[in-house]
Amino acid sequence: GARVGVVFCGRQAPGGHNVVWGLAAAVRRLGGSVVGFEGGTQGMFAQRAVEVDDARLALYKNQGGFDMLGRSADQVRTEAQVAATEAACRALRLDGLVMIGGTHTGSDAAALAETFAARGVGTKVVAVPSGIDGDLVNNFVEATVGFHTACGVYAQLVGNIATDANSAKKYTYFVRLMGRKPSHIAVEVGLQTQPNAVLIGEEVADHRWTLPDVVRRLADVVARRAAAGKNFGVVLVPEGLIAAIPEVAALIKELNALFRAGVSAEADVRARLTPWCAALLEYLPEFIQRQLMLEREVHGSVQLSQIQTERLLAELVDAELAERARRGEFAGKFAAVCSFAGYEARCATPSPFDCELGFALGHTAAALLAAGQTGYMATVRGVTHGVERWVCGGVPLAAMLACARHSHGIHARIPPSSVDLSGAPFAALKAGLSSGGWADGEAYRNPGPTQMGGPTRDARPAVTELRCGNDGDYLSRLGKLHALLAATRERCTPGCDAHVLDTALASMSCLDSILNGMRDRRGAALE
Amino acid sequence: GARVGVVFCGRQAPGGHNVVWGLAAAVRRLGGSVVGFEGGTQGMFAQRAVEVDDARLALYKNQGGFDMLGRSADQVRTEAQVAATEAACRALRLDGLVMIGGTHTGSDAAALAETFAARGVGTKVVAVPSGIDGDLVNNFVEATVGFHTACGVYAQLVGNIATDANSAKKYTYFVRLMGRKPSHIAVEVGLQTQPNAVLIGEEVADHRWTLPDVVRRLADVVARRAAAGKNFGVVLVPEGLIAAIPEVAALIKELNALFRAGVSAEADVRARLTPWCAALLEYLPEFIQRQLMLEREVHGSVQLSQIQTERLLAELVDAELAERARRGEFAGKFAAVCSFAGYEARCATPSPFDCELGFALGHTAAALLAAGQTGYMATVRGVTHGVERWVCGGVPLAAMLACARHSHGIHARIPPSSVDLSGAPFAALKAGLSSGGWADGEAYRNPGPTQMGGPTRDARPAVTELRCGNDGDYLSRLGKLHALLAATRERCTPGCDAHVLDTALASMSCLDSILNGMRDRRGAALE
Repeated sequence: GARVGVVFCGRQAPGGHNVVWGLAAAVRRLGGSVVGFEGGTQGMFAQRAVEVDDARLALYKNQGGFDMLGRSADQVRTEAQVAATEAACRALRLDGLVMIGGTHTGSDAAALAETFAARGVGTKVVAVPSGIDGDLVNNFVEATVGFHTACGVYAQLVGNIATDANSAKKYTYFVRLMGRKPSHIAVEVGLQTQPNAVLIGEEVADHRWTLPDVVRRLADVVARRAAAGKNFGVVLVPEGLIAAIPEVAALIKELNALFRAGVSAEADVRARLTPWCAALLEYLPEFIQRQLMLEREVHGSVQLSQIQTERLLAELVDAELAERARRGEFAGKFAAVCSFAGYEARCATPSPFDCELGFALGHTAAALLAAGQTGYMATVRGVTHGVERWVCGGVPLAAMLACARHSHGIHARIPPSSVDLSGAPFAALKAGLSSGGWADGEAYRNPGPTQMGGPTRDARPAVTELRCGNDGDYLSRLGKLHALLAATRERCTPGCDAHVLDTALASMSCLDSILNGMRDRRGAALE
Repeated sequence: GARVGVVFCGRQAPGGHNVVWGLAAAVRRLGGSVVGFEGGTQGMFAQRAVEVDDARLALYKNQGGFDMLGRSADQVRTEAQVAATEAACRALRLDGLVMIGGTHTGSDAAALAETFAARGVGTKVVAVPSGIDGDLVNNFVEATVGFHTACGVYAQLVGNIATDANSAKKYTYFVRLMGRKPSHIAVEVGLQTQPNAVLIGEEVADHRWTLPDVVRRLADVVARRAAAGKNFGVVLVPEGLIAAIPEVAALIKELNALFRAGVSAEADVRARLTPWCAALLEYLPEFIQRQLMLEREVHGSVQLSQIQTERLLAELVDAELAERARRGEFAGKFAAVCSFAGYEARCATPSPFDCELGFALGHTAAALLAAGQTGYMATVRGVTHGVERWVCGGVPLAAMLACARHSHGIHARIPPSSVDLSGAPFAALKAGLSSGGWADGEAYRNPGPTQMGGPTRDARPAVTELRCGNDGDYLSRLGKLHALLAATRERCTPGCDAHVLDTALASMSCLDSILNGMRDRRGAALE
């Protein structure tokens, strides 16, 4: 039977254990066996493999975390890392390797599959999409394992905080939500809880709002509510926001360059900043200046997750409202309470959806390997429906790759998806928040804790429902188009009516011009 | 029919809405009606009363928060407050007033009932025990509404964090848990999640551990784990800990006295501290010095909830380990991640237990009022059993009162209960944590989100199971004693055997001496 290895490459995501379970169930049904690498990629390089047997699975089925096997750094990229992986796969005589993770993992799996094929390594490589950030969702991937659960925990907490705000009616809560640069988590939690304001990094960047712009907009919401006698509210702040504000991003870039150049004494750093960035640094509250100057990652750059953006905004809004009060334009009260919803969600007990998605993807990975495929991402289509209507399949990782310019050259990688500002989820959020709606009222929704049974058992992420729920997924729409093209070709074989031919020709020429024009515009926008 | 008013007096606690529901259901069954005061005690003083009808109840049954009616300050104590309450009760012709809250509310209700009786106000007063802190649990009250749910949310989050620690194996998490001075929440969450260390304020105070003592003990746990190759862990820190460390408590007392005396410039404050407290302030990390000096409540005292005790301990443990490393006594890695589990629990969706407890207590309050009782606390006994075995009843608030010395004289009040260091819950916690157990292993337990159905539906707080589960509750043990005394009296009526009389006399004299001795020792300890 086939021998398949499995490794957790990305960050912890609820449902990851079920991927291993689904994989092991399918591989073993076909007479094979599964080994897991302990300690993530580092453990794989060191060939620390353990048998995934029933005793091990029994403890971790439907449980959160990656602790069945553990994880370490997320990377299989350098030549040394690839060579160590090759050695491990050869030593363990693996027919297949399943890598569980996000965009980085998918990119690495694509390159690894190519390398293995070129070097004659017999191990096929398949990736499984997981991660709480939701930024691996694209035309092929409807949902990643863990996003639903993590957002469910955050929505539970934000819902409780909103109920708290509306009970004592004296605090404005600023809640920062963990997550990478894209604001998908903020969109989902916003839709689930209906707070008074939700900042979205992509929107801020798109409008090129400055920090004072963002502060003024929040102060407007607070002031309007105060004018109606309501000195309380809830504001959601995505962790990635700080890097989405153009001038703050510029400041961070300058600081990182200085830190990497070895400039570290505070006075030196300040003296070497451009006047514009130095002025911005001065404008920021003292605690944020300190966090920017002192909290650095190993390789010297500013540690974004340590920046208390929610406190920064609360203090600046407070200052703005004090200024308005001096001008007689604000007579309310403003008391902010700041909090961070972070590490407590990514190892939560998975929701039934994430349990089923993980298991299905593990099963699918086994099927792809059994079919001899390599360089594929396991996928499930139709996830908004019940499991009985899910369509499992695989997509070549190459179809998701794009070119990105790095300091060391140009690399092909799977780009993290941003919040689509013209998409249905963002539109629904903005419609809800618009003045007179969630912003001014108390439309708070408290979804409560994730339930393993009962009427909410089969819930799906709101963004997935809005994105995939209506007119079918990308691949089935592609299938419909191909069917139409084939039908037209059939209709217009030699001997067809000349009118039919002319009509089809005119129509297709017209479409061809339109699509050429769209490509040009898109090409221009990319430069 | 009877007219009953209800008011939320204490802080938000999950299940509070069900108290109102249970009360309204019982009062209306007897032909009466219930009005609720909007905006807590302030709303009561202003006579803002609304009918509690089905339409209102429908939205809030089994839901968290106090937003059905809202709350404000928790106090009905000054003559003006009592007079306003009397005016409201007279104006609305209330036959009964139900006050939902904790120890302060119970104390106020006791005094209010006396005052109303003395002044001939016909309104009977009954209190219902609620609050997430669990410090109103005493010989008569087995559980307060909301403790189970709030601890369940905290345990869910801590469980997730422990799974996270054990997945990536690189962080030591310091989690601060909201709560007043007693560490009941830390005991419950510790028992639920089995982390590597749990600090208990009462234990620290009892041993008179200094801050360096606490830091050394934590550093010992970290170092022992590191020696076994485990550079990760989970530490629970109760919010009230900071005030339980003797010398920190002394520093806070001095700071408060200076602030109240109008000394506020930083240099002035430092100059006026006793040398001992000034030295301690210097020893503390800069951010804590700032929090102690700058974050003050309205009346000028240090705002304990703003002190990041978890970060204080993490930084001091880091410094201690760095010092040990210099001495060659520590070779591990230590990376701390700090977080605060706070406002996101007290308005959570109530657990089935808190739903049922709230409803039962509301019903009981109605029964006490219907029986003409005043100055009572509604209680439920046998809560560890299924609802069908619960015994509802009432206890005179006077039975819970004790005398406390305040700046304005001596007041009778219900004392908040501390963690009983000789009780079963604390013993179970210490037994688990003892070296070789939770401290050195990964016995982490992740209880997951609160379930409204399924096998965990009827869960109870672990501390309640340990305290009440075994040999019956206080009142039933009291009943057994009284039965034994009565039986002995029956046996020893005139005409009984002289040997029987002598045996009983000797035995009772002996017991009397023992109990006298116990009273003396207890009296001495209290002085």
